[in-house]
This record gives sequence, structure tokens and C-alpha cells, in this order.
Amino acid sequence: MRCRKISLVIPHFRKRQHSLESMRIQLVVSTLLLLAPLGAAQPQRQLNVMPMPSAVQVGSGQLLINRSFSVAISGFHDATLERGVQRFLAQLSRQTGLFLKSTPVENGNPTLLIRAEHGSEAVGKLGEDESYELAVSESGAQLIAANRLGILHGLQTLLLLVETGATGFSVPVVTIKDQPRFAWRGLLIDVGRHFIPVDVLKRNLDGMAAVKMNVLHLHLSDNEGFRVESKRFPKLHEMGSDGLYYTQEEIRDLVSYARDRGIRVMPEFDIPGHSRSWFVGYPELASTPGTYKIEPGGVDTVMDPTQERTYKFLDKFIGEMAKLFPDAYFHIGGDEVNGKPWDNNPKIQAFIRSHGMKNNQDLQAYFNQRLQKILSKHHKIMVGWDEVLHPDLPKSIVVQSWRGQQSLATAAQQGYSGLLSFGYYLDLMWPAARHYAVDPMSGSASTLTPEEKSRILGGEACMWGEWVNPENIDSRVWPRNAAIAERLWSPPEVQDAVSMYARLGELSWRLESLGLTHRSHEVPMLHRIAGVDDISALRILAEVVEPVKDYTRMESLKTDWDFRAPLNRLVDAASPESDTARHFQELVQQYIQSRYQDKDAEAHIRGFLTAWRGNNSSLQGLVQRSFLLREVAQISGDLSALGTIGLLALDYVDKSELSPQLWRAQQLAQLDAARVPKADLLLTVVAPVRQLVEASGSPAAAP
Amino acid sequence: MRCRKISLVIPHFRKRQHSLESMRIQLVVSTLLLLAPLGAAQPQRQLNVMPMPSAVQVGSGQLLINRSFSVAISGFHDATLERGVQRFLAQLSRQTGLFLKSTPVENGNPTLLIRAEHGSEAVGKLGEDESYELAVSESGAQLIAANRLGILHGLQTLLLLVETGATGFSVPVVTIKDQPRFAWRGLLIDVGRHFIPVDVLKRNLDGMAAVKMNVLHLHLSDNEGFRVESKRFPKLHEMGSDGLYYTQEEIRDLVSYARDRGIRVMPEFDIPGHSRSWFVGYPELASTPGTYKIEPGGVDTVMDPTQERTYKFLDKFIGEMAKLFPDAYFHIGGDEVNGKPWDNNPKIQAFIRSHGMKNNQDLQAYFNQRLQKILSKHHKIMVGWDEVLHPDLPKSIVVQSWRGQQSLATAAQQGYSGLLSFGYYLDLMWPAARHYAVDPMSGSASTLTPEEKSRILGGEACMWGEWVNPENIDSRVWPRNAAIAERLWSPPEVQDAVSMYARLGELSWRLESLGLTHRSHEVPMLHRIAGVDDISALRILAEVVEPVKDYTRMESLKTDWDFRAPLNRLVDAASPESDTARHFQELVQQYIQSRYQDKDAEAHIRGFLTAWRGNNSSLQGLVQRSFLLREVAQISGDLSALGTIGLLALDYVDKSELSPQLWRAQQLAQLDAARVPKADLLLTVVAPVRQLVEASGSPAAAP
Repeated sequence: MRCRKISLVIPHFRKRQHSLESMRIQLVVSTLLLLAPLGAAQPQRQLNVMPMPSAVQVGSGQLLINRSFSVAISGFHDATLERGVQRFLAQLSRQTGLFLKSTPVENGNPTLLIRAEHGSEAVGKLGEDESYELAVSESGAQLIAANRLGILHGLQTLLLLVETGATGFSVPVVTIKDQPRFAWRGLLIDVGRHFIPVDVLKRNLDGMAAVKMNVLHLHLSDNEGFRVESKRFPKLHEMGSDGLYYTQEEIRDLVSYARDRGIRVMPEFDIPGHSRSWFVGYPELASTPGTYKIEPGGVDTVMDPTQERTYKFLDKFIGEMAKLFPDAYFHIGGDEVNGKPWDNNPKIQAFIRSHGMKNNQDLQAYFNQRLQKILSKHHKIMVGWDEVLHPDLPKSIVVQSWRGQQSLATAAQQGYSGLLSFGYYLDLMWPAARHYAVDPMSGSASTLTPEEKSRILGGEACMWGEWVNPENIDSRVWPRNAAIAERLWSPPEVQDAVSMYARLGELSWRLESLGLTHRSHEVPMLHRIAGVDDISALRILAEVVEPVKDYTRMESLKTDWDFRAPLNRLVDAASPESDTARHFQELVQQYIQSRYQDKDAEAHIRGFLTAWRGNNSSLQGLVQRSFLLREVAQISGDLSALGTIGLLALDYVDKSELSPQLWRAQQLAQLDAARVPKADLLLTVVAPVRQLVEASGSPAAAP
Repeated sequence: MRCRKISLVIPHFRKRQHSLESMRIQLVVSTLLLLAPLGAAQPQRQLNVMPMPSAVQVGSGQLLINRSFSVAISGFHDATLERGVQRFLAQLSRQTGLFLKSTPVENGNPTLLIRAEHGSEAVGKLGEDESYELAVSESGAQLIAANRLGILHGLQTLLLLVETGATGFSVPVVTIKDQPRFAWRGLLIDVGRHFIPVDVLKRNLDGMAAVKMNVLHLHLSDNEGFRVESKRFPKLHEMGSDGLYYTQEEIRDLVSYARDRGIRVMPEFDIPGHSRSWFVGYPELASTPGTYKIEPGGVDTVMDPTQERTYKFLDKFIGEMAKLFPDAYFHIGGDEVNGKPWDNNPKIQAFIRSHGMKNNQDLQAYFNQRLQKILSKHHKIMVGWDEVLHPDLPKSIVVQSWRGQQSLATAAQQGYSGLLSFGYYLDLMWPAARHYAVDPMSGSASTLTPEEKSRILGGEACMWGEWVNPENIDSRVWPRNAAIAERLWSPPEVQDAVSMYARLGELSWRLESLGLTHRSHEVPMLHRIAGVDDISALRILAEVVEPVKDYTRMESLKTDWDFRAPLNRLVDAASPESDTARHFQELVQQYIQSRYQDKDAEAHIRGFLTAWRGNNSSLQGLVQRSFLLREVAQISGDLSALGTIGLLALDYVDKSELSPQLWRAQQLAQLDAARVPKADLLLTVVAPVRQLVEASGSPAAAP
């Protein structure tokens, strides 16, 4: 767990023209339209595409998509490309309900002509050409790319362009030249703390492919679980888990599934800290003698880096895993090493002294150097969290920064490649816009030289697993992860949060049709929590609460965090970001900006406030029936109070009468109380109601 | 397709004490409570169980279900039983969110003690003992049964008994003795017209197990598709389908999945009619020479029963399928044979004459006799639709009646066993209560002798596949299928539709947690149909419409029915039975019965009417954007008109003023117009609004 306090500095953006790589492919479309780079001018029409392509030229007219839609492949042709086209056809068919030919046609006059120049690497490689060019006219579409990866991206763009229109399904006439800004666009999923089955990973891979992410980083071991079958050391998965782990067969299947979608899979085995699960079967690896169990609390220890048997073990283990995971990169964790077990072990302290080291940091660097040699022997490039950065390590390693942009910039200056994850922690329950505003090249990185900047490979969204399980993980990853995907793919000038949210909403329901359950998980969970069929009052509350942010939930625990605790509270079901709250806030904004003349906005606002005002009395019936809902009694009362306060404030405004100052002071005090988290939930509509109360004290200028 | 007009006679029930089979198992619970048969007195407390057990005695107090819950198995023990217990534990864990031990414990003091007397048959057998006894006290529960089947049923009952209460999860103290009324409780799924993948069948098997159904009847071939791999005759599945069929491996997996859940799988290959898909690869089997294709329309022909090669083919084919499907019963269809191809073939007419037959019916009987001998040779019992009934056939065959109870009774009188499906056609979009009212022993069957009655083995719900696909099939099967399951399991006295609906609502959300998507499918479909994220107006309309009933949709087609037509209209997404309409109807009832004094009901009614009145203007924006929604413009206008009319009627009532007769006449005319189906949808709230209009003309008596 990375749970130190992070003081976030919202990065300051400087507008800067990002120099696009020169296009290596000649556009074969007969009439080459002038392409407008996004930084220069917004396209004439907002396309429902996410991530936004690097250059878009929208024409007039549209290509109709109907039952006769067909695809042909010219140029390079292989089975993976063909499978990609089949997936595209299946998804287009699902999305439109049309029966389509499920395979590419051989010749004739296809609606979509695809041409890849050559094949892609047998094992996905960092920095492979992912660019593509898509030209849609009224009579057909052409998609060309250097290789399969660009074709896959182009097909995803095309799927998003399909609209349900007044006359049928269609794609606007458009020419797109597109390529990623960063070569490494990842999602970390922590399967150590709570196991996430293969089918859930697969649907998330489908989601990643839809938003053009290209690395799945699997955090495969942590204190609470070791999640991969090891044939060399079977006690790792057998004793180091609750029985839930991936077989090697499943891993191979997953890697091949990801590869088909242009996604690399990077394994992480977090050592020497975060490794209690290793010690259940192999206590001899630990710095503290004893027996270990998979259970909350217990001895917190780290691996012993002073004994040769540790390296012999790791050599064999990494050798086995290096074969299982074909990717060139291998993540060894290296974060948050607790120094106490080393301090407390005289043998380890003697080792530090006898080897001329100054402290535990030097010892970890020694461990990492040894580890790096083992990885290198097995043809792997080492990746580690910030803490691995140490001048003794070769420049070939990659540093993943959870600590901040400063640490990423420092690494780049020292010659190390880096990945940004600071600012992309999905478990912190931030709104999409806040992640969206984090740019790997901003902050400390903005002053780097071009060469140093080129070492910043990209970034990774991180889904840490303390509070997720197969049921709710999609809702923590999506749709917010798409905002991060856009940050890593699109030109840096693409920054408009309003446009981002509009496109995110469209993308979100399309992602559900891929099989993701980020929206549909909620209602069944609420039924289960309430234990009854009629949950309408609970839904009204659930729509306007969000889980507390950052590490507040962890910090509010009265006992040790327990990975076995059931995730069946409202906080586990509630969306990290309330769409209703954003909508309500917009309405209030609109109403105030209209100087209280926008009666339509007011009617909508009153509709919400009235529903909230009456909701608590309905919800109390559920609360009394279900012990799981007891904790939300108070926040439900707060919501109803907000409804009452907001309506009274509107009444003053409507009567053109100033609300008494004492009344306002009382209401504002109540609003302050409503801002305090309850049941690990935040009420998200306090601020707009406060605006209404304040408005009731300052009369509108006459129109 | 069985699309003849059916004139339904709602069966008239006579109350009759159903003689329960004598219990063969001794209850080992220490204090044996007096069990109340349901017919004699309703249990003291309504249990949320469906189907209702045959005898229930509710005590006071409850058994708490928490993290320490455990199960032990005493008595007979095998792997299938153990897997059943593991599924129970997994489902209990999913339902409560509790981490539970995933396997039975060896000893100690388990919360639930299970004891089966002996094993179940290696291949599920009709009439096996399925009874069980479940005794829950405050300190623990015991479940005993003759074999695994009863244990599985008892575990399902226990799962449904788990409630979310004020202090935790619990099960009420209760003693249940339960057994099925009928031995054959099936669900037919037609996978011929639209292919339904294995994973969808599996989740439906989970649903069937939850409601104690025990036969999955797969309608595997029809004109539009042949859905099983045949190694003997590969052109059957290769040419006789659109590429979508089950491999033999998948069938074996499915059969074993079903068997684990106590469910038999009966295959149906529909011959000699409904068999165009056979002729694509093997035109020599047809009565009409020619080439055949899988496409709508085209030559409608039947198998040629006059040539020996037909029987040689069927012998080999049935031999292969008899091995693949281990069940003792084998369904040969036999329905709706079109006589014209026989009439038009001089060779066939000559055969009829030369064999002393009178007509085509005799020829089909000859075919069936030959078929029956082949089946018998391969150790199978023949099942067929009504039309196979013919005195030349042995009494061992089973007749499945789609035509009506009369035909079932006739068969029973003649000594044939029978199954009722008439009244259980899920594709007719009837409300659950209408299916629920159909009893296999009522109508013509009620006058049968006990011996004749014993030949009525049970019944099957039928999910014919013209208008379903993997996306919406669950919503056509569930939850209504549970009402049929209860009819076939519970004592005949269990007839209260109000209780049925209350329990059906609870069951419905629990079924979703098994993985069924009968509720959650709708919102993604509506998004797709509208093509946008904000579908609130469409949802309001969707909640109060239902697909047209019976065969109206088929009859309203302007061209041939096309199995390739996209199922992406509102009628494909809308629930067969509107919960909102039922709720609204109840409110209006309550309001009128209170003589207009129930102001709470009135407020609710006004809430609905107001939302409807304003909905059309919101929905028009969507209609203009999506060609798929154009057809609902009119019904959306009708709904808003209902809102306006209802509110005006309430205003008259509130003012204690009689509405003018002319006004009422005008409104009633408008309501008549709103009753007419549009876009194959029915507006379900016309009748209650009509009641309000009528009420506005007849003043309430003073309270």
C-alpha cells in the first residue's frame, strides 16, 4: 500500500506546441484534406472520440453503416490482424444490432479497406509504431497503418465514430491522422490484496484497448496474497494465497488475449518489502525468523538481502516467471521497505557494516543491483518504484513514480527512464478532471531538456486493491481511466474538461456494451445491501454521495485493515464521481449566471431539492430493516436537510426578498456539518446548495 | 414456430387437497414441530421463498449468518454433492459479501449440517426422490434428504431464506418439509432460430436450479439453424447454421454443468417439419428436390418419410446424439408438419396409397413409428408435440402439449404420459399471473381418474426464439419463469397472485446476483437505441410499455419474418411485464377505494402523471436524433396525454366537482386510441387513467 500523505500540486500548464513525430506513412486517400492539428484550432465539430486523435479534419456528409457493411484487408495480412478485424465486426454488430458478415471479405467493394504495411513484433515492444490514418468519405472508409497496432487503434476510433442518427447508423466524413504522445500508457491492477479473476481482467483489457492503452501492469504479489502459480516454488501460491491465484495456463491465455489487443503485460513481484505472502511457504527468505500466515496484522517484515540463498531463490523464480511473461520489462516493486526488521537483525546490521554501506537505503540498492543482474541474465529490463533510484544502478532500469513529478524529473536528469503514476491513483477516488489535469511533462518535468524529456516514457493509472473486488473494480477503473488514457495519448493541448466529460459520458455506456460493469454493478449491490426489492430511496441517496478521497477511509479504520472484510457498504457501491452532482452544480451555476431568470433551470433544481427533501423519510424504512444501512441514516438526514434549505433559499429569491442574515448563518452552519464525511461518504451537493443560500442574501440585479 | 391462434380459457380451479407422497425420510431434528400443510392454513409469516415449499412451520427467533458460518456433510458423500455445497457457500458469500470458508468443514460444530442418505443416479432420472427437510433453529440448521437432489433443493431454499435484518444477516427459525408436486419441471430454450451461447445457457441453468426446475429442453434444430456438431454428418452444423453451433465438447460440458445442478438435459431435433436447416447439407432428405439455404422465406418443405435412406440417416444420427445426450428422453418434435410437399410429390402419394394409409397424418404416424423403433434401439424414450399422438404408437412415448389441456387429457386417457406447455409460452409476453393460473391438472385434466392423472408428468415453460438473442433472452425468461416453476413444484393450493408477485420481486434481484441479466440488460440497450448517454426520458417511457402479446408482433410483419433482423427496437428491450404499471394500478385502486381520501396515494399518482405529462417534450429530442426511436414518437405522445388527462381528472376530484360529461367522453375516446398498439408496444397505464376519468364523473361519498 502506498498510503503516505501526498500534498498535491495541481500542475501548471504552459501551452506548448507538441512537435508531432513526422508521419511515416503516405496517405493513400485520393483527395488529401488539410489536417488541422488540434492545438491550432478546435475541429469544426466535436467528435465523440476518446482519446482525441492528434489531428482531425471533419468534412460534411456521412458514411451510412447498414447490413451491407464489409471490410477487406489489403497489404500485410496475418491471423492476429484478422482476429482484430473480427472483433471489430463483432463489436460493431453488438453496438448496432446489425447482422454483419463476421469475417473480412476477399474482394469486391468493401465499405472499409484496411492496409497494414507490415506485421507487428512477435512480442509487443515499447515504442513500436502505433500511428494510423483513417479517411472516411460518403462512399467508404480507408484505414492505413504501419502495422497491426495502428490498425487496431484506428478500428477503435471508427467504432466510437459510429453514431445513431436520424436516418440510420453513420460515421461522419472525416480524416484522422493519429499517433500516441507517449509510448507507455498503462493500467496497474493490484490483484494481490483482492484477487481479480481472469474474466474480469479480460473485460478490462477490452476497455483498455478501446481507449488505446497498451500496458497491463499486474501487481501480482503483496503481503495479502501471492497470485501466480510457480512450479519451481509451489508453496508461493499454495500457501501464500487464500487459494485464489492464476495458473500458468491462465497467464499464458491472458497474455495472448492482451497481445491480440496490442497490449503488453508486465508482471510485478513486489520485493523486498510488501512480501509477507512469500514467507508463509518460505520463511527462510525473511529478515525476521518466525512463521507467517495470510491474515491481517501480524509480523511486518521484509526479505533478507544479506543471504545468498535469497538470490539463488530469486534467480530460479525469476527464470521461471521470465519465461511465463514474455514482455521485456519486469517490475520488482521496491517500494516502502520497512527498515525496522533490518535494524533489528544483528546479522543484517553486521553485513551493512562489513560491506561499507551507510544505511538501509544502501542495502536496498545492493539488493536491487543483485536483482538487476539476475533480471539481465534472464533478458529482462528492471522496473521499480521511486525508491529503487540509486546511482549504483545502471541507466537501463525504469523508475515508476508514485511520489511525484519531482522524482520523475530527477530520474530523467540522472539518465533514467521513467513512468508517471503520481496523480493517476484511481483508488484515491478523485474526479476524472483532477487526473486529467496531471501531465507527465508538467511541473518539475517542464524544465527538462528535450533529451531528458524523451526519457519520460509515459504513465500508468493505478488501481490499488484495498477496497475493490471483482464486483466493484470496474466502477473504480471506469470511466475515469479513460481520462488518463487521453492524457497519455492525445496532444498536450487537449485539456478542455467540459469536452472531456461530454465524451466520457458517451464512452461510458459504450464501454458497458463491451462487458464492463462499471455502471450496472451498482443496482444489484444496493439491493443486496438493502435486502429488499424497492431501493428507490437508496438510489436517490447513492446518486449524490461519493467515497471519501485520498486515504481517508484507511485512516478512519479503528482496527487493522482486513482484506477479508466484506465490501458491502454503500461506500463500496457508490460511484467515485457523482454525475448527478456535476449536473446539479451546472444547473445552479446556470441559474445564478442568468441572474435567477432561467426558470427552466430553477424548475430542474427544485425537482432535485424536492426529491431530496422527501427522501429521508422513505429511506428510514430501509435503514431500520438493514444493519448495513444504519450507518447512512445520518447522511440521508443531511441530504433531506439540504433539500429543505435549498428550497427555502429559492423561495426567498423568487419573492425577491433578502433572506435574513441570521437564517443564512444558521443554514451555512448546517451545511458545514453536512460537509463532514459520514460512513466514509461525502455528500457532493453541499457546495451548490451553499451557493443558493448565499444567493438568497444578495438580490439579483434587475434584468 | 407454433403460431396458431390460441383461445385461452383461464382454467377454473377447484380446491382440492393434493395428497402428498408419504415422506420417506425420518426427520432427525430433535424437536419435531408440527408441520402445517399449506392448503390447510397459511404459514404464520410470509417467507421469501419461491417456489413455496409444501409444508412450512415458522418458529420464533432467527439463526444469525456471519463470518463463522460453516457447513459439514455427514452421511453419503461424493464429489457432486461437495461441489453443490461449494456453490452454495460461494453464492451465500456473494449474497452477503461475507468471506466464508469455501469448502465444507470436517467436524466441529457446523452452522449447517447436511445429510444425504445415499447417492443420486449417475444420469439424472425422471421421478428420482427430490424431497428434503430443512430445520433451522437459533443455534444451527440441519438439512436432510434421500439424496443429493433434495440437498440441492434444500440449499436453494436456505439461500432464499437469508435476510438482511436490523442486526445482521439471518435465517428465520423454521421447519420445512418439501417435495415437488410434479417430477418434470422444465424450461425449453429454442436455440435454433437465434443461437444462444453456452455461457448464457449456463446462467439460465443457475436460475433454473434456484427455482428448482429440473429439465432443460434444448430445441436444437429448426428451419433457421442446426445447432449441434455432428461428426457423422458434419454438413448438418456446417452448412445448416450461420456458423453458430455447439461443439460436442461444449454439449458434454453443458450436460455436466446441468447434472451438477440436478437438471436433466433433453435434446430436441424437430422432424419431419421445421427442418429446412437439415436440407442445406443433405437435400436428399427433403420431400421436395432442390437446393436449400439458411435464409428467410424460401421453399418450405419437410423430410421425406417414404425412402429408406431417411431412416438409415436418422439411425446413424440418433445413434451419435444418443451417446452425446445421456438423458433417457429424446424429443423428435413432430409439430406443424406442412402437408403440401407430401401432396405435391407423386412418389409420396403413391407410397401412401400402396401402404394402405388414408392421409398425411397416417404417413407421419408411420414415420414416427419407424423413428420410435430407432430411438428404442438406442435406448431412448420418444417425446413429441401433440401431433405425434396416434394409436399406432406405443404407450411408452411422452406427448408434450402446446395445443391445450384437452389434448393432454386425451393422451392421458389413451394411456400416454404427457407434459403441459400450453399456457407456459414465455414468448407470448403474458404477465406472470396469467402463467401462474395455468395448472396441468385443471380444465379437461380435472376429470381424469387418479391413474390417468398420474400420467401427467408435469410441464415446461417454453422460450421460443423468434425475438430473443443472448442480450435480451434472460429478460424474457425471468422472472416470469419462476411463477411457472412454482406452479409445477408447489401444492396446487398455492395460488395467491399477490403473494406470488411479492416473492417474485425479491427473487428477481437475487437472480441477478447469480449472473442473470434480466434487469440489467435494459439500460445498455436503451443507450444503444438512443445513441446517447442521457436516456432518462426514454427510461420513463420504457417503464410503462410492454411488448404486444401473443402473436401480434409476428402477425403485424409486412414481410417474411427474418431471423437476421436486428433486435434493437424498444420492443426488444422493454420488459414483458411492467412493474411500474402494476404499482400505478395498485395506487389508483387504493385511492379510489379510500373514496379519494388517501392523500399519500394521490401524491404518488400525481408524481407519476406529472412525470409522464412532461416526458414527451424531453423524449422528442431523442426521437429526432435516433432513427430507431422514430416509431415510438406516437406512443410517447400518448403517454404524455395520459398524464395530462389523469391530472385534470384528479383536479376535478380534488375540487369535489363533477367533470363535464362531454369532457369525459372526449378523454375516454383519447384513451381508446391510446390502447391501440404502436411500434409493437402496449401502453400499460391506460386502464388506471380511465378509472380516474370515470371517478371524476362520480363524486365520492362524503367520508
